Amino acid sequence: MAEVNRQWRLISRPVGAVKKSDFEWREEPIPVPNEGEVLVKQIYLSLDPANRIWMNEQDSYMPAVVLGDVMRGMSLGVVVESKHPSFSKGSFVQAMIGWQDYALFPGKVLTPIPKLPIPLTTYLGLLGHIGLTAYVGLLDITHPKEGETLVVSAAAGAVGSIVGQIGKIKGCYVVGIAGSDEKCEWLKKELGFDATINYKTENVAERLKALCPKGIDIYFDNVGGEILDAVLGQINKKARISVCGLISGYNAEKPKPGPYYFPNILVKSAKIEGFIVTDYVHRAQEVMNDLGQWFMAGKLKFKVDVVDGLENAPLAINKLFDGSNQGKLVVKVSEEPS
Amino acid sequence: MAEVNRQWRLISRPVGAVKKSDFEWREEPIPVPNEGEVLVKQIYLSLDPANRIWMNEQDSYMPAVVLGDVMRGMSLGVVVESKHPSFSKGSFVQAMIGWQDYALFPGKVLTPIPKLPIPLTTYLGLLGHIGLTAYVGLLDITHPKEGETLVVSAAAGAVGSIVGQIGKIKGCYVVGIAGSDEKCEWLKKELGFDATINYKTENVAERLKALCPKGIDIYFDNVGGEILDAVLGQINKKARISVCGLISGYNAEKPKPGPYYFPNILVKSAKIEGFIVTDYVHRAQEVMNDLGQWFMAGKLKFKVDVVDGLENAPLAINKLFDGSNQGKLVVKVSEEPS
Repeated sequence: MAEVNRQWRLISRPVGAVKKSDFEWREEPIPVPNEGEVLVKQIYLSLDPANRIWMNEQDSYMPAVVLGDVMRGMSLGVVVESKHPSFSKGSFVQAMIGWQDYALFPGKVLTPIPKLPIPLTTYLGLLGHIGLTAYVGLLDITHPKEGETLVVSAAAGAVGSIVGQIGKIKGCYVVGIAGSDEKCEWLKKELGFDATINYKTENVAERLKALCPKGIDIYFDNVGGEILDAVLGQINKKARISVCGLISGYNAEKPKPGPYYFPNILVKSAKIEGFIVTDYVHRAQEVMNDLGQWFMAGKLKFKVDVVDGLENAPLAINKLFDGSNQGKLVVKVSEEPS
Repeated sequence: MAEVNRQWRLISRPVGAVKKSDFEWREEPIPVPNEGEVLVKQIYLSLDPANRIWMNEQDSYMPAVVLGDVMRGMSLGVVVESKHPSFSKGSFVQAMIGWQDYALFPGKVLTPIPKLPIPLTTYLGLLGHIGLTAYVGLLDITHPKEGETLVVSAAAGAVGSIVGQIGKIKGCYVVGIAGSDEKCEWLKKELGFDATINYKTENVAERLKALCPKGIDIYFDNVGGEILDAVLGQINKKARISVCGLISGYNAEKPKPGPYYFPNILVKSAKIEGFIVTDYVHRAQEVMNDLGQWFMAGKLKFKVDVVDGLENAPLAINKLFDGSNQGKLVVKVSEEPS
């Protein structure tokens, strides 16, 4: 057990890519729980595209992180001291510990994690907010039908890789867009995508035209920008676009224009809808049931990209935006208890 | 009865505003019906923003008008000769006669118009495709709830003026955006809008902020462009945007960027949906019932802007885009039979 609470505090709003100097490294005393509180030690820190939005000055669906505060983040941890009857020492929980070793919580905000013979990181991914995001963003927003064409961007990312596999389970023809040939191979050979596009080396609009001869019915968008435009130019009547993320714009230093093909929303009677996973927590039970069954049946695969050490968090988050990560990005902050 | 069939044929794709020279004036023999056909003489020609789209080279939800063909348009006419058992001479019908005096139709594509003590033009407006557009575009797409804030652009136009009034019937706070002080006065004093913005003399974003202190829940968009952007910057969580038209772009000579505030779709979990009235013909019976009742009860008012003479059609259509028309724009092609 570390004898201090190591922390990354946000001290300036990043411009473009995140720099280490946007954060201050602090070592503080480990906090002590009061009655009703639980002290949690972090094992895995989840790095998600939304984290980058929280660093900006403007509030989004969550308030901006205040300068000087510990950076916010979702975590998986272990209880090291409990003054709450529902949590005992050694049990695993999910919580917003943030970019530090330890945090105190009132018992009611902690989500207990069952001890099952599956990797702990699954709960920060497939059986956590990532799986819920992929499931409701695809099924609740776009209602895919058998035989429809589904395009997914950031397809080798945590959410995108699950979306494409759910699309296959639902009988869609699935095209994934990703940032390397290696990722594209993985999507096709391991995850069963029908086709892929490497957006770094191929012309996305031309390849979509070649790969989607019947047009595009559904687009699950993680990136926005030019790829969204390429898709909008080829949508079918009554197409549905689920906006999960717009990461191509998160690092932007000034506002970018919206899609040039926007008028196709009218011409094609199409729908574009954004969503935030926190609005779908009431669906979690049912969704985890489905995802768990598909996972056990081998229909859903899930990859975790582990970065070692809390000290590497500030630079590791850039992997989500430069196309270098594959699967769910997490930071291993401490060893899993045996 | 004119002894020739006067016609406007489209001979070049307009660039920007429509010019008379984009059309050719022709005088042809009046066609003669074969068995099963009906000869219809036009009384009123409907001019609608979509007409401008049909003049462009690219197909939209309807194919582009072929160069050399009579310009397409919705009309209200009278049967002058019938070889179909369901239609007798002197009865009124709705049909796509286009920009000419006469046309032949197989009986099955004609919609009979009942003889009621209301103006004939009502059937090209409130009780026609305009009323259906306003009704389904607002109610079926955005599901307004009492107390919500609804913003309507092109509010003094045929569709917009009905949308705002339906919004009031449903208990919304309604803000209309229009192009002159006279129109704004009409919307407030005659139609019961809560507030208005003259987009030609006022800063739309600033006025929206002042007039919508609780933010915007619903936007009925007829125009797109900068006004859409001003609205998107001020939407509430779970806002719904119904895209009925994007007239600010119809005359554009090159593609325009989409809205800069597009990311708010994600941040606010908002929905943008386009629609085409022809997909809602199955709703017509029920919708006309509601609209008719509101009209009879004095809850819905409807204004018609009549231009005299088929010869004026090419220039009259520009009134839809320069902000100079108020209410439903029609061309009176021939006198109503007494």
